Amino acid sequence: MAMNGVLRPGFVQLRVLDMQESLHHYCNLLGLEEVSREADGRIYLKVADEFDHHSIILREADKAGIDMMAFKVASDSDLDRFAQRIIDYGMTYSDIPAGEQPHVGRRISFIIPSGHRIELYAEMAISTAGPQIQNPNIWLEPPRGMRTQRFDHTLLYGPHIDKVLDFFVNVLDFNLTEKVELPDGLLAIWLTCSTKAHDIAFVKHPEPDKLHHVSFYLESWHDVGHAADIISRYNISLDIGPTRHGITRGQTIYFFDPSGNRNEVFAGGYTYYPDNPVRIWDESELGKAIFYYEKALNERFLGVVT
Amino acid sequence: MAMNGVLRPGFVQLRVLDMQESLHHYCNLLGLEEVSREADGRIYLKVADEFDHHSIILREADKAGIDMMAFKVASDSDLDRFAQRIIDYGMTYSDIPAGEQPHVGRRISFIIPSGHRIELYAEMAISTAGPQIQNPNIWLEPPRGMRTQRFDHTLLYGPHIDKVLDFFVNVLDFNLTEKVELPDGLLAIWLTCSTKAHDIAFVKHPEPDKLHHVSFYLESWHDVGHAADIISRYNISLDIGPTRHGITRGQTIYFFDPSGNRNEVFAGGYTYYPDNPVRIWDESELGKAIFYYEKALNERFLGVVT
Amino acid sequence: MAMNGVLRPGFVQLRVLDMQESLHHYCNLLGLEEVSREADGRIYLKVADEFDHHSIILREADKAGIDMMAFKVASDSDLDRFAQRIIDYGMTYSDIPAGEQPHVGRRISFIIPSGHRIELYAEMAISTAGPQIQNPNIWLEPPRGMRTQRFDHTLLYGPHIDKVLDFFVNVLDFNLTEKVELPDGLLAIWLTCSTKAHDIAFVKHPEPDKLHHVSFYLESWHDVGHAADIISRYNISLDIGPTRHGITRGQTIYFFDPSGNRNEVFAGGYTYYPDNPVRIWDESELGKAIFYYEKALNERFLGVVT
Amino acid sequence: MAMNGVLRPGFVQLRVLDMQESLHHYCNLLGLEEVSREADGRIYLKVADEFDHHSIILREADKAGIDMMAFKVASDSDLDRFAQRIIDYGMTYSDIPAGEQPHVGRRISFIIPSGHRIELYAEMAISTAGPQIQNPNIWLEPPRGMRTQRFDHTLLYGPHIDKVLDFFVNVLDFNLTEKVELPDGLLAIWLTCSTKAHDIAFVKHPEPDKLHHVSFYLESWHDVGHAADIISRYNISLDIGPTRHGITRGQTIYFFDPSGNRNEVFAGGYTYYPDNPVRIWDESELGKAIFYYEKALNERFLGVVT
Repeated sequence: MAMNGVLRPGFVQLRVLDMQESLHHYCNLLGLEEVSREADGRIYLKVADEFDHHSIILREADKAGIDMMAFKVASDSDLDRFAQRIIDYGMTYSDIPAGEQPHVGRRISFIIPSGHRIELYAEMAISTAGPQIQNPNIWLEPPRGMRTQRFDHTLLYGPHIDKVLDFFVNVLDFNLTEKVELPDGLLAIWLTCSTKAHDIAFVKHPEPDKLHHVSFYLESWHDVGHAADIISRYNISLDIGPTRHGITRGQTIYFFDPSGNRNEVFAGGYTYYPDNPVRIWDESELGKAIFYYEKALNERFLGVVT
Repeated sequence: MAMNGVLRPGFVQLRVLDMQESLHHYCNLLGLEEVSREADGRIYLKVADEFDHHSIILREADKAGIDMMAFKVASDSDLDRFAQRIIDYGMTYSDIPAGEQPHVGRRISFIIPSGHRIELYAEMAISTAGPQIQNPNIWLEPPRGMRTQRFDHTLLYGPHIDKVLDFFVNVLDFNLTEKVELPDGLLAIWLTCSTKAHDIAFVKHPEPDKLHHVSFYLESWHDVGHAADIISRYNISLDIGPTRHGITRGQTIYFFDPSGNRNEVFAGGYTYYPDNPVRIWDESELGKAIFYYEKALNERFLGVVT
Repeated sequence: MAMNGVLRPGFVQLRVLDMQESLHHYCNLLGLEEVSREADGRIYLKVADEFDHHSIILREADKAGIDMMAFKVASDSDLDRFAQRIIDYGMTYSDIPAGEQPHVGRRISFIIPSGHRIELYAEMAISTAGPQIQNPNIWLEPPRGMRTQRFDHTLLYGPHIDKVLDFFVNVLDFNLTEKVELPDGLLAIWLTCSTKAHDIAFVKHPEPDKLHHVSFYLESWHDVGHAADIISRYNISLDIGPTRHGITRGQTIYFFDPSGNRNEVFAGGYTYYPDNPVRIWDESELGKAIFYYEKALNERFLGVVT
Repeated sequence: MAMNGVLRPGFVQLRVLDMQESLHHYCNLLGLEEVSREADGRIYLKVADEFDHHSIILREADKAGIDMMAFKVASDSDLDRFAQRIIDYGMTYSDIPAGEQPHVGRRISFIIPSGHRIELYAEMAISTAGPQIQNPNIWLEPPRGMRTQRFDHTLLYGPHIDKVLDFFVNVLDFNLTEKVELPDGLLAIWLTCSTKAHDIAFVKHPEPDKLHHVSFYLESWHDVGHAADIISRYNISLDIGPTRHGITRGQTIYFFDPSGNRNEVFAGGYTYYPDNPVRIWDESELGKAIFYYEKALNERFLGVVT
């Protein structure tokens, strides 16, 4: 495929209540690596199998949640092209100059109808702690903690997800892979900019700008089980799992970081192609859509967001 | 990403010496399904997790090997666009009208510098035996045989792979993910039209139009082990494995169909993005590149092609 | 070790409400095989990796539950020895002549203080559908359904489990591997006659002769996940899982047969030796003991027995 | 079962050429833990899931190989009983007083007909680094390195294995689980003192007192794959694998420690009961017996011993 435009989820900036506890959680337990610590207090982390400098940014704040999610685009001209499209669509954006984050080029930043800040950028330096390039080993250091491989996607809660869908498909060239359609309208959408079953997803929610979860990719169901062992051993607050989603088929476990931000680690999920039909879920199988095994939703999973 | 152009490997047409033995091999042992049997004797198969009508075509012949490999493109206009690009590149193509294969639209067909016939098509009917769309289950029937999920890629042997590389990158918009560079030049290339580590690969070889292997995707290393159990239990001719590739990181096992065509089933492999560096292997680690565990090539793997 | 006395759980006789539904459940979904159907209506099943003729007996009845659980002993003289010990212990037993079940020798049958019928026997014919002996393959036919390998153990509910413990340890030479001690006394015990973490277990319960679950062994956590896929796909009534026990470390999923008898399929669990300390659980970690991930019990798991 | 007599392989004492390299190999790469270092230079290691103080002893020497393998028996009276049996059998033994190894009680030590020193002991102190007993977690620290769980067995090479078989079965109460019978006699035997498929094994070999391999148990085939990744990443000398044995069904990989002693890490293997038939392999399937996938032996595996 042409493989230009939006490449992938690049980074999220998370608000955490206590930086030390958060670093312990993300580095020692999930297995991320701290790659830089800046004067403004933000700390930058990367996941083992990512080439780029960072993918998770922690910012200490009074309130948990997500500041923004950023997607990497293929080139600087893509950035200009999307900026123009956003204007043409009747939305606005702001420019963030290169250097606001270490090793990251200029970004364009905008608020989508669900109230979330989304950003695009084309340049981030390659990390020295990423995969090898010349005669590469499978990994440089054995996977540790939960054996996370990459920052994979987010699920966001907010209003106007029909508009969010239109924006992501028509302005950012995403594809809709699955949706939940209830009698009173669209409840949830799964969007991809690649062949993954989702790169970002949204659930309809009255309050804007809410984070349901930040997700990390694992190699296998075996590693999902190992993550569950770690969650219990180290008294991480479990939400639900190990289980499986009907939607995306991901094999998953959910838990909370010390600030109450929900994390997911998951494996599997089908490969999506743009000629695939949209998978549609209705009211009759909603439980199975979300938790394929339990076939029922729990209140905490539905209601707790940051 | 824009996700137009060449989507994925769509089908291969394999020559087999004995149709009944071949059907037993591909259907009962690998787990494919026969979806149609045409008047000209060709039999069409699909793998469980594919939406489209077929992906493997068996043609009885005196000599094993591959007739052609076809890629699906996103739209009919892509087909026109690639046709023009092929002409502009100084190559020729022929048109194959819709209906030459059941449920497949028109194709363009051309010979690449390695001597292989490659085809493009935009239309194939969706199978009734594919994944569900409304409230889909993980699968409709439990995986059987080797638990194959999809036709994944081929590795082809032939001359002029530098020209093949140029053609796939500049005419068909593929990306080069990995290459083996020896002192006397390019030995092998791995090419993707998606985020897979490879959709097609080539090794330099004096004789044109040779097939090294046709590959099928499995869900996990666990299933690679199960495939190995099946291979031994049913006396399938093993080539090598279970093992792992340094190139692509795939966890793999190789074996032969009853006609001597090499098959691979594999799991894993990294996710590729077009901003990733090309991974480069040199002479010093060539063994590890191919077989990460054995770190040495065997003569049969190098030399036997159909 | 000397390896005489009680070898292993040999069979259970389950009461089912509808034989056809039950056969579908145990044979098509769990993957057992019907090995004989007798004039009295009882149907005999075996699991793939067992040598002996049968391990599960289905008897149609008005009420679900367990008729008896039988252990195989190493020799006929063991049978005499245990018969004498039972008398010496002040209990009684009855003799069941050879042939009451097909291919099974004489049994001694007795009621333990929890109200359950337990039996011992020394002879059962080897099945023609069991593992191969001369140049054996890993399996003769690929695992099917949930890929069950053997009948593994039961968990029984009833009163007087302190007396049950004494009887199994002092009369039948079992070892106590784990126990739950609450302030008001012993709640539950796990007993082994081998190096498995449990061959039978008991939970204190006011009503005698109750079945909590019959358990089948799977090869791996991967297969536990596959069993979960089957449970959802075929609408088997799920109890809980996939999850893990703190007790025994088993990776597990619970569900119900069509009559309401609870089944477990599980993998893992440690290897026990008689010099290992007894693992002791107290009130503070009771949730973790039962469900290591959820750390909480659900009412259905505690209360529903047949 | 009565569960007295010989419980399990307790420890081996290995000769290594360079202690520092050996500690790196066994501790950092296989994941063992150093538990004591004594004045005579011997270093004691244990594997994560073992209760006892140590299971591997490294002794620096000019020549690699095995000094002795010791089995733990259930009680001191077992020790006396086996001592008498050895005398009655016409063999001799020597007494080793408590304290020759740290935290180990008295041992009896004798040479079997293959030339190997075998020992029995009844007492070893429980380690503070072993599994928890009160409200135990699955593990105290996440598995590291190759994720080894226990020292499992050895395979020894030497003459007179028919006499070794007689001794182990008739004096030490072991069971024969599998054997290879060639036209010119017994080639190899697998012996168990428990329900494992083997606790020790012997191959006929002209030179006495040779070590083929020391084996460590892993949880799963997934971990066998991970061990293979470690072997390649850290340039451990690979022998063969990942593969599977027909004999025992173990999923396995073989490699060498820096002194040339062969190690195995493996998962799986069936559960053996003393009423199981002996599995018998003959010349026609000898390759499959050893390497179920490759169906052929390699010279190095057959010939290289220490």
